[in-house]
Amino acid sequence: MAISSSADDGRMRLAAFMNAGPGGVGGWRHPLAEPGWFSMSYYQNIGRILEAGRFDLVFFADSLSVPRSLGDSVADNVRYGVGVPRLDPIPVITLIAAATEHLGLAATSSTGFQQPFNTARTFASLDHLTEGRAAWNVVTSFQDAEARNFGLDRLPPREVRYAKAEEFLQVTAKLWDSWADDALVLDKDTAHFARPERVSAINHAGEHFRVQGPSGVPRSPQGYPVIIQAGSSPAGRDVAARWADVIFCSHESIESAIDFRADVRRRAAAHGRDPDHVKILPAVTPIVGTTAEHANERREEFEDLVPAEAGLSRLAYHLDVDLSQYELDEPLPPLDVQGVDGHYREVVEVAAREGFTVRQLGKWYGARTEGNLVGTTTQIADRMEEWFTRGAADGFTVCPTHTPVAFEDFTANVVPELQRRGLFREEYEGRTLRENLGVPRPEVGQWNRRAIRSS
Amino acid sequence: MAISSSADDGRMRLAAFMNAGPGGVGGWRHPLAEPGWFSMSYYQNIGRILEAGRFDLVFFADSLSVPRSLGDSVADNVRYGVGVPRLDPIPVITLIAAATEHLGLAATSSTGFQQPFNTARTFASLDHLTEGRAAWNVVTSFQDAEARNFGLDRLPPREVRYAKAEEFLQVTAKLWDSWADDALVLDKDTAHFARPERVSAINHAGEHFRVQGPSGVPRSPQGYPVIIQAGSSPAGRDVAARWADVIFCSHESIESAIDFRADVRRRAAAHGRDPDHVKILPAVTPIVGTTAEHANERREEFEDLVPAEAGLSRLAYHLDVDLSQYELDEPLPPLDVQGVDGHYREVVEVAAREGFTVRQLGKWYGARTEGNLVGTTTQIADRMEEWFTRGAADGFTVCPTHTPVAFEDFTANVVPELQRRGLFREEYEGRTLRENLGVPRPEVGQWNRRAIRSS
Repeated sequence: MAISSSADDGRMRLAAFMNAGPGGVGGWRHPLAEPGWFSMSYYQNIGRILEAGRFDLVFFADSLSVPRSLGDSVADNVRYGVGVPRLDPIPVITLIAAATEHLGLAATSSTGFQQPFNTARTFASLDHLTEGRAAWNVVTSFQDAEARNFGLDRLPPREVRYAKAEEFLQVTAKLWDSWADDALVLDKDTAHFARPERVSAINHAGEHFRVQGPSGVPRSPQGYPVIIQAGSSPAGRDVAARWADVIFCSHESIESAIDFRADVRRRAAAHGRDPDHVKILPAVTPIVGTTAEHANERREEFEDLVPAEAGLSRLAYHLDVDLSQYELDEPLPPLDVQGVDGHYREVVEVAAREGFTVRQLGKWYGARTEGNLVGTTTQIADRMEEWFTRGAADGFTVCPTHTPVAFEDFTANVVPELQRRGLFREEYEGRTLRENLGVPRPEVGQWNRRAIRSS
Repeated sequence: MAISSSADDGRMRLAAFMNAGPGGVGGWRHPLAEPGWFSMSYYQNIGRILEAGRFDLVFFADSLSVPRSLGDSVADNVRYGVGVPRLDPIPVITLIAAATEHLGLAATSSTGFQQPFNTARTFASLDHLTEGRAAWNVVTSFQDAEARNFGLDRLPPREVRYAKAEEFLQVTAKLWDSWADDALVLDKDTAHFARPERVSAINHAGEHFRVQGPSGVPRSPQGYPVIIQAGSSPAGRDVAARWADVIFCSHESIESAIDFRADVRRRAAAHGRDPDHVKILPAVTPIVGTTAEHANERREEFEDLVPAEAGLSRLAYHLDVDLSQYELDEPLPPLDVQGVDGHYREVVEVAAREGFTVRQLGKWYGARTEGNLVGTTTQIADRMEEWFTRGAADGFTVCPTHTPVAFEDFTANVVPELQRRGLFREEYEGRTLRENLGVPRPEVGQWNRRAIRSS
């Protein structure tokens, strides 16, 4: 099959990045930011804004601990509101579902600290209730503080986490396939509810999980919910290339994004998949101004909201390394990072280029925006078009500096410009999220027809 | 403190019993029954009906397997739609929350097959998002088929399940208390998000769980979600008397209900609790007719929908005993039941009284209704009043023969009659579910001021 350098239909896909709590480091301090993380209306309002802007989906990140970073303490993160609070994203996306008709709804759920029977059921249920709009962001969890909320002292090594994730995904796929698409009968006259011969136990017995099945939920509108993955390590890329319909990633340059996308597409093809069925959506943080100067002022205003200590806390959290052991005014030495590999590689790249000390890295990291999208509507659309047409992206994951205003700015300004250029939809194309994304509905057993290893 | 024989304010509480799937055995076959178990509008419509009827809460039962009963097979249950499908009740109650303002929202979640960090977070999140309407029906799970979806061959014995439930509840309470009520500051000017000195790790290390904490979710409007329990064995009653705000139960006679309520209230008092803060809501299945004859016709119409095999499947499922090993036309011998103890005691009582064979028991069990509430509005209200004033109940859990019509019948006819008699609210009294129920908001550490053992 052909491996084209841009998406198959010439249109971008757009996801919105959110947290069920304050995102980033200083965004909650913005004068226009709403502290609505505990309220139904806050999330439903954002959902309506994104649907009016024809976004494919809203995506909720998550973690299963209050981050411990400097001095293995939660104090700085609680003090500054970094990575905390984090509500359960499942009820949050469900509330958004109730306020929208087309928007895809993605929640993060961990293969480390959930059970596949429950996770398969939750997402299949959501997929039914939303008529095919559910998506699961599959993470392995990357913090020892998370492990310590689930009976462990430390996380297993990355290769074990990814092996467990692979098995977890196999179990969930078997459960989603345990009811054939035609299993339900619902004939009141003959009391024939469903066909037992079309519903099967899975009898999975593997290294990490034993699950009898079948699922308690018939096959859902999308077959499998849309699967999202963000792994950037080799093990992560391979799981993503095998399973993911959407890949979320972060790149410091267009060149690294092009390399990453080409690599993932090669891996997907090696699994026997059409690479166009893997939508790679790098993170961007647009800051829209009426002029370039105005946009830069808005960026500076955003940076001023970030205390350096809070940024350092966030970096320590993402790397899962206690950075308080290093001199603040010295360069950061090489680290053994079990946290987010992609973020660490960016930090090394920037620290080398700029000659940053640990303190400077903290400030930079806390105030960083993704994808250098600071400018006028035209400048932002130009840059998005360049990434898209040069094969760096199938679309973007839009990260807000502050909510809901950054999404309003983007949908009011950039979306119409992308539409004018024919780069983005005017109306939703399909009924389900898979149809809008242009990724096929898996048949029963589909997962098992992909090779396990690409290399 | 006084142990009064009826609720403290002279008003009943009403809960509605639901499944996120077909309930009972034959109800889905009723000509007016809606097969809407996969749709948002079905659940939201029922929520609106119940809120218009001023119900305290809607309660979703659950189980974590497709029931295996006759011959350790799922076939009969799938064939007849008994106990299956079962969607995840968390997104279901969240959708109802989005369509209502006052109704309490209760989901079942198992202490056997969830993790306390996740469960505490899910219900605290729901409590925030609903402004204090969340409730958790705590179950230990009672089916070997459930155990086999989570890596086990069999369930642990009941005493182990309840000991684990007690520890699970302690961990969740510690997590709910890990943020003081005044921890949040949210001062944008000083970048002061929350007070680290008011947020504490829990460092729980027990027999079944090790959890570091703190929770990622600040203390919620109700402090703890409303806790519901349905245990009727001695171990179950003791956990309920210590922890539950609401108790769901099932009784074949007013006398056994009076005994049960008195016993639970004694146990609650022994834990140092005010027994009026435990609301005991026996199940009832009202069938309303314009005359007594009309009601009986409707009951017969309902019974005709139940195939005997389907009823036997359901009984086998509730008892978690493979009844296919017994002669259909002989009496049921004494069983070693690890399933629902309360249901088994009823079955023994009825089988002895009626001289039923296994087959007859199956038919009776499948078509059974709770509380003998078949009659005119006046007859039903009379009987509810009798149970309430004689100390058999603080209110009722209303089970529908078929949905949504049975709830419409009840709220259109019986609720106004109860209101006319001053036995039920005209308007919601409070802001939160606890306020409506008349059960206090726990202070931080409240759970730990109750004695562990009542006897």
